[in-house]
Amino acid sequence: MENFTFYSPTKFVFGQDTENECGNLIRSFGGSRVLVHYGGGSVVRSGLLDRVKASLSASGLCFCELGGVCPNPRDTKVYEGIELCVKEKIDFILAVGGGSTIDSAKAIAMGVPYDGDFWDFYSGKAPQTALPVGTVLTIAAAGSEGSGDSVITKESGMLKRGASGECIRPKFSVLNPELTTTLPPFQTACGATDIMAHVFERYFTNTRDVETTDRLCEAVLLAMINETPKVVANPKDYQARANVMWAGMVAHNNIVGVGRKQDWNSHGIEHELSALYDCAHGAGLAVVMPAWMTYVLDHDVMRFAQMACRVWGCKMDFANPRTTALEGISAFRRFLKTIGMPLTFSELGAKEEDIPTLVNNFGLGDGKTGGFVSLSSEDVANIYRLAL
Amino acid sequence: MENFTFYSPTKFVFGQDTENECGNLIRSFGGSRVLVHYGGGSVVRSGLLDRVKASLSASGLCFCELGGVCPNPRDTKVYEGIELCVKEKIDFILAVGGGSTIDSAKAIAMGVPYDGDFWDFYSGKAPQTALPVGTVLTIAAAGSEGSGDSVITKESGMLKRGASGECIRPKFSVLNPELTTTLPPFQTACGATDIMAHVFERYFTNTRDVETTDRLCEAVLLAMINETPKVVANPKDYQARANVMWAGMVAHNNIVGVGRKQDWNSHGIEHELSALYDCAHGAGLAVVMPAWMTYVLDHDVMRFAQMACRVWGCKMDFANPRTTALEGISAFRRFLKTIGMPLTFSELGAKEEDIPTLVNNFGLGDGKTGGFVSLSSEDVANIYRLAL
Repeated sequence: MENFTFYSPTKFVFGQDTENECGNLIRSFGGSRVLVHYGGGSVVRSGLLDRVKASLSASGLCFCELGGVCPNPRDTKVYEGIELCVKEKIDFILAVGGGSTIDSAKAIAMGVPYDGDFWDFYSGKAPQTALPVGTVLTIAAAGSEGSGDSVITKESGMLKRGASGECIRPKFSVLNPELTTTLPPFQTACGATDIMAHVFERYFTNTRDVETTDRLCEAVLLAMINETPKVVANPKDYQARANVMWAGMVAHNNIVGVGRKQDWNSHGIEHELSALYDCAHGAGLAVVMPAWMTYVLDHDVMRFAQMACRVWGCKMDFANPRTTALEGISAFRRFLKTIGMPLTFSELGAKEEDIPTLVNNFGLGDGKTGGFVSLSSEDVANIYRLAL
Repeated sequence: MENFTFYSPTKFVFGQDTENECGNLIRSFGGSRVLVHYGGGSVVRSGLLDRVKASLSASGLCFCELGGVCPNPRDTKVYEGIELCVKEKIDFILAVGGGSTIDSAKAIAMGVPYDGDFWDFYSGKAPQTALPVGTVLTIAAAGSEGSGDSVITKESGMLKRGASGECIRPKFSVLNPELTTTLPPFQTACGATDIMAHVFERYFTNTRDVETTDRLCEAVLLAMINETPKVVANPKDYQARANVMWAGMVAHNNIVGVGRKQDWNSHGIEHELSALYDCAHGAGLAVVMPAWMTYVLDHDVMRFAQMACRVWGCKMDFANPRTTALEGISAFRRFLKTIGMPLTFSELGAKEEDIPTLVNNFGLGDGKTGGFVSLSSEDVANIYRLAL
């Protein structure tokens, strides 16, 4: 195990009707002038936005609104938000929505106190300070409600890039599983795939002696394997939604990933797909992740065999652990198919002839990247081809 | 799953040499005049206290010291600490030691800004404010480094009681597994038993649909079952110490226990043993917990069968799940024996004739207590008898 710092000071308020506590929560974290940031559609139609605003008014908070965040949120909306916050002297940002809205809110939060272009933080610069952010989560997926991460797409060139910093961890996150019960099966399954991918990115590591975090990773995966088919079959299953929602937070606030090198190539490889085709991130991951697993399998057969046995319930083939390892990857693919995820480029609407563009956008050039297996541009192209 | 709030804003700094960061950490949390609180013995002999003081001096902090905290920490030391803090205008308390020292520091922290007797907080009053506390952990056991809990023994009558409050969660905790490598096997095993008990108190619940936290509980237990024999056999095994240390935090900051009713009777029943005989808390738990399990088994046979299969690797007897459930408890007993824990009153130095005193001190009277199975005084006496 490696040395690490773990600091997750987000207050999670979980359960039915908790969105009504927003106003008091913002007050308790010192906010007075609030930007309410959201996408649109269901947040408005369902009456959630009205309930949130009523809570803010009841706590005597001033607020203005900025809706229109789209999936794979754009830099253009972030610039709009920064300008509005400066003009309205905003001191707290409340994101009402899923990962896209929260990530957009985090980008605005970093941009407001910063003299330069906020995109600097998505090009490698570490943020030092940000406006406080709170969230009302409507989709269990990105884990952004408990993380110090944000992903934004630059419209010019459709580049999808990430930023990280402790200062953008939300002050509080309101998690009401009921808000997710209106989510259709496909989006639900995309979210579940993203949650599982967050665990796999941490699980596949070269760091030895990480039994505790290994077991915690496996715990989240086992819970997801049990609960996801329930929420896909019956979107209104509150209890299964609650289990998935908490698993989504645990999967990504890094409590299951501390002290170990992590990989994150599958996320990078997927980001180019959702940036180019504007497909759902989870759907892209369902296509990329098993292909990545197959491609890197021989780097550490026993780790894949461990996944197969502990997570997918495969029997260990002691004479040929590689068979077991492959069975684990097949089991993952079968699971993804069961919950309605695409497994190939064509199911995703992606095209073989775009592979050079995808690889180019990935931007490795002659370099390599990845914490578990270091991949070159050629490797990335091979993984896309494995996913055809 | 039930509604819940989870708020664990402790900064964990984990790994080798991290005690040298104490000074900067205290500064970053606004401390300037520090009470360094510790037990004695190994903290002094090992040079740890000197390293910690050097770190404080290097950060330009004023500090004074209060040593002499004993296992099952006493109210008398707390009163001494409160008086010293007031006199020296202390604004930060640094606990250097195990759960006893940290719990004593938390009690002092609550007592300083409070007009009345600090014991009020150990008699049911909720604390509203406390001095900030930081910790340098030397024993993986109590989980006090990441919890809002404290247990103190009142010398008059030897009553052991707990207090809880968000305000006593440490601001930071320094976790250096190396500091635990000098701990002898018996104390190591006592700590491991305490960690596992913290999980079991949460695991046995009447709340349905808690798959995610069930799996997380099982993850910590599986890791402990794997790592504990290593640290007992070889106290200097840094990697196994690291796994146990992180498991000890995860077991008790409540991330594995949210959204479910918890039991905590075994802890209460044990507290009377360690209060009366001044035995190690973990040793007392090794005697009480399997007896408690056996006594309450029929309340929910399937939950015990789940533990047996998922945690202890038993095969499910579908024709007679109770057999499987009992096998799980036997496996727990065997494990405790393997790591050198006592299993009976006599091994602990406890006496059958003291059972009425123990039950009386437990203080239930005609009442009942417990979140999984509600127990009367008679039940408590029966559990002590099962442990003879």
